[in-house]
Amino acid sequence: MCEPMKIAIASDHAALDLKAELREWLIELGHEVADLGPDTAESVDYPDYGYKIADVVAEGTVERGVALCGSGLGISIAANRNPAVRCAMVSEPLSATFARSHNDANMIAMGARIIGPEMAKACIAAFLNTEFEGGRHQRRVDKLSNPS
Amino acid sequence: MCEPMKIAIASDHAALDLKAELREWLIELGHEVADLGPDTAESVDYPDYGYKIADVVAEGTVERGVALCGSGLGISIAANRNPAVRCAMVSEPLSATFARSHNDANMIAMGARIIGPEMAKACIAAFLNTEFEGGRHQRRVDKLSNPS
Repeated sequence: MCEPMKIAIASDHAALDLKAELREWLIELGHEVADLGPDTAESVDYPDYGYKIADVVAEGTVERGVALCGSGLGISIAANRNPAVRCAMVSEPLSATFARSHNDANMIAMGARIIGPEMAKACIAAFLNTEFEGGRHQRRVDKLSNPS
Repeated sequence: MCEPMKIAIASDHAALDLKAELREWLIELGHEVADLGPDTAESVDYPDYGYKIADVVAEGTVERGVALCGSGLGISIAANRNPAVRCAMVSEPLSATFARSHNDANMIAMGARIIGPEMAKACIAAFLNTEFEGGRHQRRVDKLSNPS
């Protein structure tokens, strides 16, 4: 497994239980985890939490972000509004591996209504343990920070 | 099936064959399809095509966009830089259904190295045939157009 990292995690109400399970698992693995909420099951709007976690990833306060909502789609769209964020919406580990090796992803998004906690852990493990390949991929990643 | 729509499709070199197959299938279904390229197998950068298709979707030149690359991740991140675009990265039809019913997605992204052409068609069918639910989802979708 990779060296301990600073990792932020955030969700909406639909993914509250998955967030709690993944947070505890990441802490057990030795990572420093910032849980950006929500803290209760009250209904919230996923864009608020998507923007919040994107901000701390973009600022460099944390090295990686894990974003969760019902499908994973809404919070990933919100996070990718930030040009410093590369948030990969995944539901299996192969895509999480490509997200790192080709896209240098600094965030991962998953859906609590789509995949279970063990699949989510397998995706995060691939996301944390895969290095960016650089080379021709660097030019493309650079273009993601400079939308026309 | 839904009424005929104006649909744009774009990819990178890794998804050229999938793009051709989906383009012909959409035309057979009666849709008007704008193929934004690429036209050859020469290596290209997915952000260029992601920004290009996002522009025509945002302008309203087309009603929907279909974006493809190796994993689907890179081109979906690029498309979502445009605050008028809601591009759903999917690999199965249930998520494509949520993308429409909850997120009012106007674009879908898929990975040619991750899913095959029949799965991609099932995702597009769900994407084209599902209505947005509105209600509480509208407020969240509105927030996606106004990143903080």
